[in-house]
Amino acid sequence: MSSAGAKTGPGVKAPAPLKLPLAGARGTGFLGARLGNLAVPKKAEAVCRASHDRGLSATVQSALTTEAPSNTVSATRDGKGTKVMIIGGDGYCGWATALHLSARGYSVCILDNLCRREFDMQLGLETLTPIASVHDRVKRWGEVSAQNIHLEIGDLCDWDFFSDAFRNFAPDAVVHFGEQRSAPYSMIDRQRAVFTQHNNVIGTINVLFAIKEFKPDCHLVKLGTMGEYGTPNIDIEEGYLTVTHNGRTDTLPYPKQAGSFYHLSKVHDSHNILFAARAWKIAATDLNQGIVYGVRTEETMADPLLINRYDYDGIFGTALNRFVVQAAVGHPITVYGKGGQTRGFLDIRDTVRCIQIAIDNPAAKGEMRVFNQFTEQFSVRDIADLVKRLGAPMGLNAEIIQIPNPRVEAEEHYYNAKHAKLEELGLQPHLLGDSMIDSLLEFAIRYKDRVRMELIKPAVDWRKTPVTSGTAKAAVKAD
Amino acid sequence: MSSAGAKTGPGVKAPAPLKLPLAGARGTGFLGARLGNLAVPKKAEAVCRASHDRGLSATVQSALTTEAPSNTVSATRDGKGTKVMIIGGDGYCGWATALHLSARGYSVCILDNLCRREFDMQLGLETLTPIASVHDRVKRWGEVSAQNIHLEIGDLCDWDFFSDAFRNFAPDAVVHFGEQRSAPYSMIDRQRAVFTQHNNVIGTINVLFAIKEFKPDCHLVKLGTMGEYGTPNIDIEEGYLTVTHNGRTDTLPYPKQAGSFYHLSKVHDSHNILFAARAWKIAATDLNQGIVYGVRTEETMADPLLINRYDYDGIFGTALNRFVVQAAVGHPITVYGKGGQTRGFLDIRDTVRCIQIAIDNPAAKGEMRVFNQFTEQFSVRDIADLVKRLGAPMGLNAEIIQIPNPRVEAEEHYYNAKHAKLEELGLQPHLLGDSMIDSLLEFAIRYKDRVRMELIKPAVDWRKTPVTSGTAKAAVKAD
Repeated sequence: MSSAGAKTGPGVKAPAPLKLPLAGARGTGFLGARLGNLAVPKKAEAVCRASHDRGLSATVQSALTTEAPSNTVSATRDGKGTKVMIIGGDGYCGWATALHLSARGYSVCILDNLCRREFDMQLGLETLTPIASVHDRVKRWGEVSAQNIHLEIGDLCDWDFFSDAFRNFAPDAVVHFGEQRSAPYSMIDRQRAVFTQHNNVIGTINVLFAIKEFKPDCHLVKLGTMGEYGTPNIDIEEGYLTVTHNGRTDTLPYPKQAGSFYHLSKVHDSHNILFAARAWKIAATDLNQGIVYGVRTEETMADPLLINRYDYDGIFGTALNRFVVQAAVGHPITVYGKGGQTRGFLDIRDTVRCIQIAIDNPAAKGEMRVFNQFTEQFSVRDIADLVKRLGAPMGLNAEIIQIPNPRVEAEEHYYNAKHAKLEELGLQPHLLGDSMIDSLLEFAIRYKDRVRMELIKPAVDWRKTPVTSGTAKAAVKAD
Repeated sequence: MSSAGAKTGPGVKAPAPLKLPLAGARGTGFLGARLGNLAVPKKAEAVCRASHDRGLSATVQSALTTEAPSNTVSATRDGKGTKVMIIGGDGYCGWATALHLSARGYSVCILDNLCRREFDMQLGLETLTPIASVHDRVKRWGEVSAQNIHLEIGDLCDWDFFSDAFRNFAPDAVVHFGEQRSAPYSMIDRQRAVFTQHNNVIGTINVLFAIKEFKPDCHLVKLGTMGEYGTPNIDIEEGYLTVTHNGRTDTLPYPKQAGSFYHLSKVHDSHNILFAARAWKIAATDLNQGIVYGVRTEETMADPLLINRYDYDGIFGTALNRFVVQAAVGHPITVYGKGGQTRGFLDIRDTVRCIQIAIDNPAAKGEMRVFNQFTEQFSVRDIADLVKRLGAPMGLNAEIIQIPNPRVEAEEHYYNAKHAKLEELGLQPHLLGDSMIDSLLEFAIRYKDRVRMELIKPAVDWRKTPVTSGTAKAAVKAD
């Protein structure tokens, strides 16, 4: 375990002062009109003292001592009090979603076992942006928005805990982000492969049983992944494929070819959910999400204690985040293999909006509806080129290099994935070309003195996943 | 928990004497020429005393007191010492396979945690045929065949145990039957749904890691189920489907629509195995097996201590076994719903031969080959009619009735599943019409005084799987 505070020493610069671009954040996106109330700054010293009392890390304290604004947010009542339980609500997508919904009049309960933070501790990883504890986050959100988020800390796989929490809150919708979500993490070693599949599959089974037993009308909104489909040589449809074979036709679940124990866990979930939807008449939406990027949502930018995580390490960071950080610190952009790997991408602001759309337009009972949740597709090469091109005017001079691919995947392949259904329901996509600068490069440059280059290396080799502990290899070297 | 011995009392007849049709067994099937050595009967008293000393149940002792022969079996060397680890080798298919291979010169290791016997204890169930302990089985097999079967008692999900056993034996092929294999069991309650998916999925992951790490050339022969496919409205192919879509063509994993948490666990296995085969260059054969029937194989009939189990209860018994037992005791044959549910079936003698064929003709490295392992398809109605028709000349007068279907499944549907690949490799099927009398009806009639009608009821309702313990409902009432 390491902390940024401990790293501050000879040759390591202290974190740069925060300059949160809140005005810009409020001015963009469909929420601008709703979240317009201006900040009422508190004295930085008071915030610092309070955060110290709560035992925050030196990094977060440092963030809070520098121009930390405290906005207020006017919540709307669009959600009409609809009760939404967000499992994994302390994670990257979950946290942004929780605040997005809370700001819109949904009654939100976050349920989380905080394992994402534990993974960082185990492996010595750290988000680029300094994040507060979940307790501080929720408390500050209450102060900023006057909206209460109900917090349940515990494990979805612990049925006694989860069923109590579920019955007490009695949600109208469950948004299930509560899974180990890193492909490299699932390939570190046998134990983590097993953990990933157990945690994800059993957790989802528990959600299905809770809905069936305690709230049969509750709508399940489950996060899947575009990685479930793999890279077939035909168009990827949204969850189902109509096949004509030997003169007969049927619409069947789209064939799955996942490329890690993590991606496979989501394939398993999808099959389990389809069965439960049919057998128990559960209403379910399976969101096959692409790669999410960006730090900025209106709500997570409203106060430093609300800021979202930005993962750029070799385990939890995506290629996009990694490239941006590499460009910011003047390191070559490292493309795995040929770089022809093509994937779907979306802005975190679209993630939160997609979840809201799914909740507001629930699936029918007995139906597992599938949406492909991304807005644009790019190859890894495309992304590297875009970072290089948009970084140049900001003074970054990025070189692109190829390194051996630690994954087992096609590096040149056909890819054409459909993603119409969420847009038909009203999603207005943010585009990467527009978000790259203010939601990615700007953050990477602002926090570049927090960047630890040793986190970026590809730490997990798909071909070598050991049966003994892989922590030492995957983790940051202490050196 | 109950035992047949305890049930012997007023109104309950003692078990009928055994008359094992060994001569007939030796005379039929492709093995007749190989297993021809005649019985060398021992004194029944000596056998009885020995079995008593080993703590056998009253039932098995009873079996052993009556004309129990002890054959010797001449093993061939066809298998050339190929080392085969049979996970789940104490179960119905596993035991028959272990003896089949051992008799043919394969070096066999059985690895089993005996959970199948534990399930019977939990639920008060009992095989129609009295079976010996695994230790007695293996010991007697050594006496009968002069072949040693290596026995490892422990849990596949316990990595320390399993990896030791795997490394020590260093198998050339692993036959993986070691899964919870009952759909109703997986639907008893939440705990058993979770147990089934955890046990099956994690166990298979452990097998994959063991092969990758310790014996990369070991061929995995994994038992799947035809139930993975569900009942699509197009022909079912063997594992993969070639699809032309929007002008492009690819061959993809056949879409899966499983109908219970058990069947789903095998879908998950198939996806995990496909990934591991590709990422780690493992050679794997996924056998999507149909419903297996029959008690008789040459080896399991060679001695009463080797006899295989015959499950007819509502949890582990199949429709076919249940119908046969109902006919034998003069109870109406109970068809679930309309009876149009169509499935693939095969004789246990074909199961063991299929496994041998798969071992002798291994998959290529990096390939997950899929065979549909069944020989004939029938509807539930077909089966009921066949039992009625073939039972009549044996003095049985069976009535067929419909009862409400406890499962969620289509009761009238298209079904045309391919099963050519094993026959192309040499399988010569036994047909149900021929086996019904000597391998099913004859056993049911012989053991009919052991039949406990209360075990036959449909004890598990797919629509009601509770989150609290379902044991009381699923188990036999103590009455």
